[in-house]
Amino acid sequence: MLRTHNCGQLRLENDKQEITLAGWVHRRRDHGGLIFIDLRDRWGLTQVVFDPAIEATAHDLASSLRNEYVIQVTGLVRRRPPEQDNPNIATGQIEIEAHNLKILNTAKTPPFDINKEVAVDETMRLRYRYLDLRRERMQRNIILRHNVVRYIRNFLSDEGFVEIETPILFKTTPEGARDYLVPSRVHAGKFYALPQSPQQLKQLIMVAGYDRYFQIARCFRDEDQRGDRQPEFTQLDMEMSFIDREDIMALIERLMIGLAENNSAKRILHKPFPRLTYQEALARFGRDNPDIRFGLELSDISPLVANSGFKVFSDVIASGGLIKGLNGTGLGSYSRKQLDELTDFVKGFGAKGLAWLKVEADPEKGVKVGASSFAKFLSAEETEAIMKQLKGQPNDLLLFVADKAEITNESLSRLRLEIGQRLGLRDDSVLAFCWVIDFPFVLWNEDEKRWDPCHHLFTSPMNEDIPLLDTNPGQARGKQYDLVLNGYEVAGGSIRIHQRELQEKVFGLIGLDIEDAKQRFGHMLEAFQYGTPPHGGIAPGIDRLVMLLAGEPNIREVIAFPKSQSATDMMAGAPTDVSEEQLKELHIRLR
Amino acid sequence: MLRTHNCGQLRLENDKQEITLAGWVHRRRDHGGLIFIDLRDRWGLTQVVFDPAIEATAHDLASSLRNEYVIQVTGLVRRRPPEQDNPNIATGQIEIEAHNLKILNTAKTPPFDINKEVAVDETMRLRYRYLDLRRERMQRNIILRHNVVRYIRNFLSDEGFVEIETPILFKTTPEGARDYLVPSRVHAGKFYALPQSPQQLKQLIMVAGYDRYFQIARCFRDEDQRGDRQPEFTQLDMEMSFIDREDIMALIERLMIGLAENNSAKRILHKPFPRLTYQEALARFGRDNPDIRFGLELSDISPLVANSGFKVFSDVIASGGLIKGLNGTGLGSYSRKQLDELTDFVKGFGAKGLAWLKVEADPEKGVKVGASSFAKFLSAEETEAIMKQLKGQPNDLLLFVADKAEITNESLSRLRLEIGQRLGLRDDSVLAFCWVIDFPFVLWNEDEKRWDPCHHLFTSPMNEDIPLLDTNPGQARGKQYDLVLNGYEVAGGSIRIHQRELQEKVFGLIGLDIEDAKQRFGHMLEAFQYGTPPHGGIAPGIDRLVMLLAGEPNIREVIAFPKSQSATDMMAGAPTDVSEEQLKELHIRLR
Repeated sequence: MLRTHNCGQLRLENDKQEITLAGWVHRRRDHGGLIFIDLRDRWGLTQVVFDPAIEATAHDLASSLRNEYVIQVTGLVRRRPPEQDNPNIATGQIEIEAHNLKILNTAKTPPFDINKEVAVDETMRLRYRYLDLRRERMQRNIILRHNVVRYIRNFLSDEGFVEIETPILFKTTPEGARDYLVPSRVHAGKFYALPQSPQQLKQLIMVAGYDRYFQIARCFRDEDQRGDRQPEFTQLDMEMSFIDREDIMALIERLMIGLAENNSAKRILHKPFPRLTYQEALARFGRDNPDIRFGLELSDISPLVANSGFKVFSDVIASGGLIKGLNGTGLGSYSRKQLDELTDFVKGFGAKGLAWLKVEADPEKGVKVGASSFAKFLSAEETEAIMKQLKGQPNDLLLFVADKAEITNESLSRLRLEIGQRLGLRDDSVLAFCWVIDFPFVLWNEDEKRWDPCHHLFTSPMNEDIPLLDTNPGQARGKQYDLVLNGYEVAGGSIRIHQRELQEKVFGLIGLDIEDAKQRFGHMLEAFQYGTPPHGGIAPGIDRLVMLLAGEPNIREVIAFPKSQSATDMMAGAPTDVSEEQLKELHIRLR
Repeated sequence: MLRTHNCGQLRLENDKQEITLAGWVHRRRDHGGLIFIDLRDRWGLTQVVFDPAIEATAHDLASSLRNEYVIQVTGLVRRRPPEQDNPNIATGQIEIEAHNLKILNTAKTPPFDINKEVAVDETMRLRYRYLDLRRERMQRNIILRHNVVRYIRNFLSDEGFVEIETPILFKTTPEGARDYLVPSRVHAGKFYALPQSPQQLKQLIMVAGYDRYFQIARCFRDEDQRGDRQPEFTQLDMEMSFIDREDIMALIERLMIGLAENNSAKRILHKPFPRLTYQEALARFGRDNPDIRFGLELSDISPLVANSGFKVFSDVIASGGLIKGLNGTGLGSYSRKQLDELTDFVKGFGAKGLAWLKVEADPEKGVKVGASSFAKFLSAEETEAIMKQLKGQPNDLLLFVADKAEITNESLSRLRLEIGQRLGLRDDSVLAFCWVIDFPFVLWNEDEKRWDPCHHLFTSPMNEDIPLLDTNPGQARGKQYDLVLNGYEVAGGSIRIHQRELQEKVFGLIGLDIEDAKQRFGHMLEAFQYGTPPHGGIAPGIDRLVMLLAGEPNIREVIAFPKSQSATDMMAGAPTDVSEEQLKELHIRLR
């Protein structure tokens, strides 16, 4: 060991001990002939004092030290003069009287500051990731991630789960995204696929009787990197046998509560976690991953205006659309410009416009219609009914979208988040979990004119809805359950199909030709014939979960070596060219 | 939950309780009008009795049950008639009086027996891996693996190590084997490589100041699958800063002892682990991964016969070769046929022949030369010296190889293992760990006429041997250490280079052009300039370690879904053809 203690360890009780520390020069100050070094390692900071009157050689050498040099210091622990105590650091009552200094390595000036929290261009951070990871914020995130994953592993192991590693070199998986492919050298012209998830394998592990499986599993999707996505990501993959939906939800709820309470200072808003049906989530929040840290719920005013003379509204309803609104509480003083901004905002999500109504105080009735983009086209009864339904109070701003249901929901749900943000309602110190259940089993894919699974190919329909698969698939519900946290889906799961006949029926329903199905999933169909237990599972996303616990804005902040938006490793420079010889061995050539 | 208890849980104290179990029909016996079912799950077996006098319906249905059906049984726990107690199973004092039976799933007759330990063709096992994994032996291995990995994780976490995930989609690594490549869709003509190990990244994690890192890491090597190899395998990857060799060896030794003692009934032969230098391992055992569970050590007789008149021996020595022998204790009665077998055995490892000498009892001198393939060519003094050096006792068989040093060592070390096996000396209940240290820094590659790193590119030479890099590289030693268990290398590690100048010098020594080095490892050279601490690490192989703890003959027995010798997933059928459309998107075509 090149040290006797780490840089976060020494206290007053170590006074007068001879110790050796090693670490990085965090900061150097020259003061009254003395040189002060804040020495840093993962565990903290310790102040080291070089005094020419005590050790001239060490002091001389110390004068050559620069930030991020790696040094080893031997010296005596001593009490700081009380007025120099630093209560902000754990070692703040002591300092080291340096007797000997060894420079273990020098350092060029880093391209950005390590020793203070400053905004740095992300390209630069990714390029020098080893320096970025040296910063306190990143160390906190990476260590939080370690603790979170450790907590999960021990929790599940204690519950009788077995962690089982599944292959990375596997076969195409049915998650709907593009696969990363790996050409085989041994089998000319053939390719492995990197798993989009271990879905098939975890079900086969249930067939194999392991009863409770989990894995912190790397998953791969070759998607365009819009938004907050990575080519590879990590999920807690898990599966259980002889259970139903309630068992998995209860277990995950206990896990998440323990996890958050042991690894975060944030407060869990609701225990037990509220449950919303898919339809309810859509009705109240306009989306199936609602942020329930705040209200501002959406309200369907279609029935109130269905017969109104206002053609914009009545046409939408006549063509099967939806008119919903929300109450922008206290925003009645918004200017024309601000209203235009909000209108542009919803237009960004496909809405044709934003109808608005300001509520004013009325000495008699309490409230009355103020300025509005549409009130004049409605009857007084209609506007009053609207204000009443949206609980409009003086100085509220009621906002409405009339459009196809999907657009009304999407644009208004986004507007709700935006206004929640403006009103400071998205409290970062709070964790608002909720379950969304009773999803549709399939969704109509208008482009391809066929049914798509709402979750995935192996999710079971509700038992009582199986007959609907033949008559009215769109009405069937699936045994799917999603866990949502602060507006992010953090886990999706389902009870699976465990019988070959039903699986084949579902393949048929979603338009998968039976021969094609056998080609791709023949091993699954076959396995189902050899005594497959009822089973189900779920897969919380580790990156997103840690991001939310850390209070970070994107998952790159909690991944040690993320790829850029163009799927590039900026540090090592991957992907790269390869030699003609390598291509030849792999039986491929470039186009 | 489809059950109240699992199949290994019920005891006498549960007598008269109404319970529900679910699991697989392990065995069915019809006996005196009753039907007995051994119901199985991961936790054990429970006997269920269907009595037509108690529940005729359940009994009727039970008569349709076959092995591996998945069923749910509700009934009453009752004490077995004492004479029917089964002490071999934990639930052996009770049985279930079945009141209700539900068939959750049927099962076709499996292609091999699940309920007894029989030899099954491995192709069949891999084809139906989900059934193979249902067998007791595999469940034991997979759960052992889980426990081993869990032990390691908690041990290291408690020691202040942080588990950090590193990318699977990365850049070519310098481990010397072939990379698996992944074509990029976004960057036409460019490829990611799957890591042969996270070597570079773990060193960069040290640069980033994490001080103690580990990861249970998936690694990939596209090698021909001779012997016991897999395209992907798992290692405990770890790295520490501010340490020297002794620190890592001490930590690993504590880890391995705790691991074995907590997860295995096997006995650790030596504590602390013995240490051998590379030269000593070669001298005594002929290889750098010696099985030290037994003696039969090799003995160099070159000095004894260097000047003998026996041309076979003297020629070998004159041309720089080596003559070594071992004492096949008690094998003096081996027949000509058995001796021919041993000769063929060493020829399989390149030896030109096997010289032998039987020791006989002599009333005066204790021992004398008996039959021998070569004794007549030597003087009496020479043969006596040889017998003495090999501690020949009456009825011993002394065996010798005279050849180039590499061949003498390789063939004799193999012969030693073979004879150890024949003599029953390789005790399966024993774990014999040892360290091998002081490896050469580089080895001469005769084919390519250059020096190859003995370990890898980033291993540091011994400080005192750095000058030898310029003058006599073959004499320099590296800071490498290997952990060997029962004749297998289970971990290889080293102290790394942490300074750019030395790293560049080593690149030069092994013939890596500086421009090429910058292209491939520029990010490492650059990182070394920003305050890189002294660091080192090691990487125990998880598959092999678990294999040895489980007492299995190959790593496929401890991997849930291994590939076949031709790198095929026999169950799912990977690798597969892919569509022209996919190839087009990836900018490649087949040759």
